[in-house]
This record gives sequence, C-alpha cells and structure tokens, in this order.
Amino acid sequence: MATHALPKYLTGDKAAINEFIDKFDVFLFDCDGVLWSGDHLFEGVVDTLELLRSRGKQTIFVTNNSTKSRSDYLKKLTAMGIPSNVDEIFASAYSSAIYISKIMNLPSPKNKVFVLGEAGIETELRECGVPFIGGTDPAYRRDITPADYTAMADGSLLDDDVAIVLAGLDFHINYLKLSVAYQYLRRGAKFLATNTDSTLPSNHTFFPGAGSISIPLVNMTGQQPIALGKPSQAMMDSIEGKFQLDRSKACMVGDRLNTDIKFGIQGRLGGTLAVLTGVSKKEEWEVEGAETVPAYYVDKLSDIKV
Amino acid sequence: MATHALPKYLTGDKAAINEFIDKFDVFLFDCDGVLWSGDHLFEGVVDTLELLRSRGKQTIFVTNNSTKSRSDYLKKLTAMGIPSNVDEIFASAYSSAIYISKIMNLPSPKNKVFVLGEAGIETELRECGVPFIGGTDPAYRRDITPADYTAMADGSLLDDDVAIVLAGLDFHINYLKLSVAYQYLRRGAKFLATNTDSTLPSNHTFFPGAGSISIPLVNMTGQQPIALGKPSQAMMDSIEGKFQLDRSKACMVGDRLNTDIKFGIQGRLGGTLAVLTGVSKKEEWEVEGAETVPAYYVDKLSDIKV
Repeated sequence: MATHALPKYLTGDKAAINEFIDKFDVFLFDCDGVLWSGDHLFEGVVDTLELLRSRGKQTIFVTNNSTKSRSDYLKKLTAMGIPSNVDEIFASAYSSAIYISKIMNLPSPKNKVFVLGEAGIETELRECGVPFIGGTDPAYRRDITPADYTAMADGSLLDDDVAIVLAGLDFHINYLKLSVAYQYLRRGAKFLATNTDSTLPSNHTFFPGAGSISIPLVNMTGQQPIALGKPSQAMMDSIEGKFQLDRSKACMVGDRLNTDIKFGIQGRLGGTLAVLTGVSKKEEWEVEGAETVPAYYVDKLSDIKV
Repeated sequence: MATHALPKYLTGDKAAINEFIDKFDVFLFDCDGVLWSGDHLFEGVVDTLELLRSRGKQTIFVTNNSTKSRSDYLKKLTAMGIPSNVDEIFASAYSSAIYISKIMNLPSPKNKVFVLGEAGIETELRECGVPFIGGTDPAYRRDITPADYTAMADGSLLDDDVAIVLAGLDFHINYLKLSVAYQYLRRGAKFLATNTDSTLPSNHTFFPGAGSISIPLVNMTGQQPIALGKPSQAMMDSIEGKFQLDRSKACMVGDRLNTDIKFGIQGRLGGTLAVLTGVSKKEEWEVEGAETVPAYYVDKLSDIKV
C-alpha cells in the first residue's frame, strides 16, 4: 500500500458527501469522461448538477476542446440534456482569446494572430476584438505551390502585422499552414497553443489532439508554446480573473490525473475530486510515489447525491 | 583556442590534397550545401568529381531527400550538370526500401507499408517488391469525415496486412493520414522514418522537414521511429551492404556537422571532410568541447584540385 495520503472515497457516504458539498462555493467540471463519454450522457449527472446549484454552488464547465466557441459548447451541453448558460463555459479557445486580448494586449496594428485551428477559435478572437488570419480561410486550405516557397522566402505571402501564432486543434492541417506558421515564428511571433493534449479521445479510440498540431512547430523552432488549456496555470489565471474565484472555496472535478487533477492541485484550489468514468484508474494514485493524488474520489459523478 | 584535435585545412595545400585523395577509395557526398545550393551549382564541383573519378575513386551521392527516387535524383544531378548514374545514388527513400525488404524482410501477406510521403518512396518500395498503401493515393488526400472516425474505430477503414508505418516528407500531410498512421501504430505496426530532419532548406529559408511530418506520431505514441537517413547508422549499414564498402578507405563529405560529419564519424569511416558552403561554420568545431569535429576541411569542395 502507498504510504502517502490517499483521497477520501465519497461513494455511498452521505455524511461525507454533505461535508464535501458544504466545503466549496464553486465546482469546476471537466466534461468528457465526467459528464459524458462521446455521445453518451452518464445517468444521474443532471441530478448532481441540480443538487449543487440548489445549494447555491456555482458550476463551471472547463474544457480543452478548442474547436468550439462557448456558444457552440452551450449547444453541445443543451443537446446532451445539461441545462447551462454561456457564462458557465470556459473553453481553451476562449481562454486563448482572453489571454491575447487582456494579458498580452499588444498595441494595434502589430497584434494580429495567425491561427491554426477551427471556427471556435475565430469566434472567440472576434468577440474579444483580436484581428486574425489563417484559421478556416480557404486560401490556406490547399496544397503548397512552387510560388508559395518564393513568396514565403521574400515575405510577400506574409502579413507584417502578425505578432502571434496560435495553434489549436485543426482538422484541416496541411503543409502550407505549417510552413506559414513557422515563417511567422522565425520572424519573432509569440507562440501560443490553445492546449497541448497529444490525443483527442473519440469513438472509444484516439485521434491527433491540439498538441500534435503544434508539435511540428516545436520540433522546427526548438521553442515550446505558452499553453492556454488544462493543466496550464495560464488558464486558471484567466478563470480566476473572470469569475473572481476564491481558490480555497473551489473544487476541480475531473477524470484525468495529469490534466484535470494536476490543474486543480497546481492552482492551489481548495479541493479536487476524481471520477472513475474516464481515463485514470484509482491504481494510479494508489501506487507508491504517485505524483498527482486527488483529495476526493467517487466511482461516478452521480454518486454525489444526498 | 580549443584543446581538442582540429581538422586539417586543405585549401591551397596541394601536397596535403594529394595525400588526402590517395588515402581513400570511396567518397560519399552530401549534395545540398556541398555540390549546390538550391538551384545554383557551385563552380568547379564537376572538375573535382572528375579528378576523383580519373584517379579511380568511387563517388556516391547520399541524400536524406525522401521525395525523390534514385532515378528522379539522377535527373536532378543531370539537370544540375553533374554526370552520374543511378548506382551512385543513395537516397533515404531507397535506404528505407532496402531496410524493409532486405533487413526486416517480413513474410507476406502481413508485410504491407502505410506510407506518409511522396512518389519517390512509392517508386523505391515498388522496385523492391514491397506492397504499400497511402502515399500519393488520392483516397487519403482529403478532409476527414464523421464516417472516417467510426471506420477507424471499428477497423473497417484499416488494412489488416499493414505491419509498417513509413513516414517521409509529405507535402500533402493532413489530419486523415496522421489519424490512419496512428491507428496502425496502435495496432502494433513498426514505426520507420526515411529521415528525421526537422527542417527542409529551400529558397534561402526553411520549411517543414520529414522529421516534422513524423513528430505528431512520436508525440501521440511516445515512440521514436527507426530512421533510415543520415546520421542514422541504419543508412550506413545499407550503404555498406550495397557497395561492399571498406569503411577505413571511405570519406564522408558534407556541410552539416550534426548529420553528415556525425554520420561519417559514427560509421567509423576512414575520414570526414567538411565544406563551408552550407550550414555549419568552422567556429562550431573550434569551440571548446565541440562534439563533432571533421578530420579535414576546405572552404569549398572545388578546393580539392591539383
């Protein structure tokens, strides 16, 4: 058995559950693996969310999914049967737009972003008033041509106002986009990533994640991006700024030790709750020398009931 | 000044040049940065090659360029004005095909290769009798669809005979190809790369190299590919096998310390010659604690004249 402190197991222990709920004002939820898996909503999840809200707790949905804007994500929550509103949603595209507009806040006109990613990023940048190019623009969704090499080398294909490269999950990644992004980084653009998850879980298997879109640029430049998704504390800082969070009264709920639980611990939140309906297994924190140990765990989120 | 042994400088020293030539039977040449830069052939290079050949030396052109087959590369040498023949050419696509067919030599039918790359790889695999899919097939040059996720998850999009993923430079890289390659690796396919150069020099700047095509798969699997280009000794072994090389009588000529010169030193060749017409500068080997130091150097290849 492990000699380190183990998480408190709440499933079936009504007194401990009530004490747990009373301890916090805000609950931050990872979504996939916690509320649902793929298109399958876990039973009882809505009841747990309603219980928390009925006791005056704030619920916030925190996701590394960068392809969706907050309003896209609201549609997803609604379609899954989870009542919510846009202000409860904090996704990595939004987190990136906040970081660029509020924290970096570069003076115009040299504040343009070259985007590797989908429409969700564009929507959030637009709402924050950040100018951008790339993204879903069909001009970049094509094969590279001999003329492109010349136009990148002499700079005529490049926009002198680009000061940031932001890489998220891009289902239309190609050689031209990677080449253009690299040219901007060579010219000194700041390197940001919505998140650096290497894989994207889907259909009970895995596909390339946002981190596998930015990794060619890491490989070419030897430079790591500033990541704006979990477990990066840049995302926690944005959440704190937006919600005026009292960290000691907040609890992070998630299924992945190395992103969700780590995110809560490094953010010095009052608590972390692991659920066993996703990626991590309890053997991972029971092992001797386990690095990331949640404060609480349940078999499934709906075990939080009284 | 450095306290380690420094390379012998041959430029202008006729006696030393004659001694240098007499010491070797075979000269291995890197091409870009040695014979030419981009489309510009360096003056006097052809004279140097003819001098070596007139003294009975074998000349071999060794390139990490995986987009070209040997016959494509012969066309390029001819177009540049360098007389050659196909048997003098050793490119990473050919090296990969030799490694797969002669060294791995998997029994049919579970010996198929999924290719990330261009036509040069396909030509060499075909000539070596290796079955393959992917590559330039238009079926993979398209956006991913919702049906693809399902078909990858249930395996119906995948070919059970694929036992190898070979990643080279692919100007048509996309999300679908990366996803398919990853699924094969998850199922246990061996991971090979024609070469792992992070960048491709062109038009006096850089573009993504073959190593930046395979790196998303490294990131997703945590697994490194077996590389078949310089400085991997798998390539040197293939060269030795093909040319029945006496390594002590061979000299590697190149412009990059960390690929060409390292390739020759680690391959225990009789000598290495650095030229200053490409990437590396002499300050790199003069610095205290320099790791890779050539045995000889000249300002430019055409300084090898008598």
